[in-house]
Amino acid sequence: MKAVVTVMLKAGVLDPQGKAIGQALQGLGFEGLGEVRAGKVIELEIAGSDKPTVQAQAEEMARKLLANMVIESFKVEVA
Amino acid sequence: MKAVVTVMLKAGVLDPQGKAIGQALQGLGFEGLGEVRAGKVIELEIAGSDKPTVQAQAEEMARKLLANMVIESFKVEVA
Repeated sequence: MKAVVTVMLKAGVLDPQGKAIGQALQGLGFEGLGEVRAGKVIELEIAGSDKPTVQAQAEEMARKLLANMVIESFKVEVA
Repeated sequence: MKAVVTVMLKAGVLDPQGKAIGQALQGLGFEGLGEVRAGKVIELEIAGSDKPTVQAQAEEMARKLLANMVIESFKVEVA
């Protein structure tokens, strides 16, 4: 099954990448832009057909490697 | 409204970051892993209440700045 892990900086953590993107978009003439936050997404192909098991595996991978739990939070979607 | 732009490398484009993540996960003892692909996600706060308009704006931002259309594809979700 395919698990998609989305990792974002926690609210309150400074996001210079997101800020740079926001400024670049404004420089291109885009208006009405509020906060911009950047994160990463990891698509994992995991063997198994039981959705809760695959979800749990992906969450463990996120906690152990994909996300830095000090400054980042993650969510897992299994499709 | 909040628009979420997800940018992934197109199928067939080599993804060394995804490969490195996959190998690191295997090194940590995770089994049953197939392909791993890494991408980025950008959350944009865009002024406006008309969903199709915000969607179109976010797609233009993605085409002009957020994604490299030569090697990347993107999808936009407006919530």
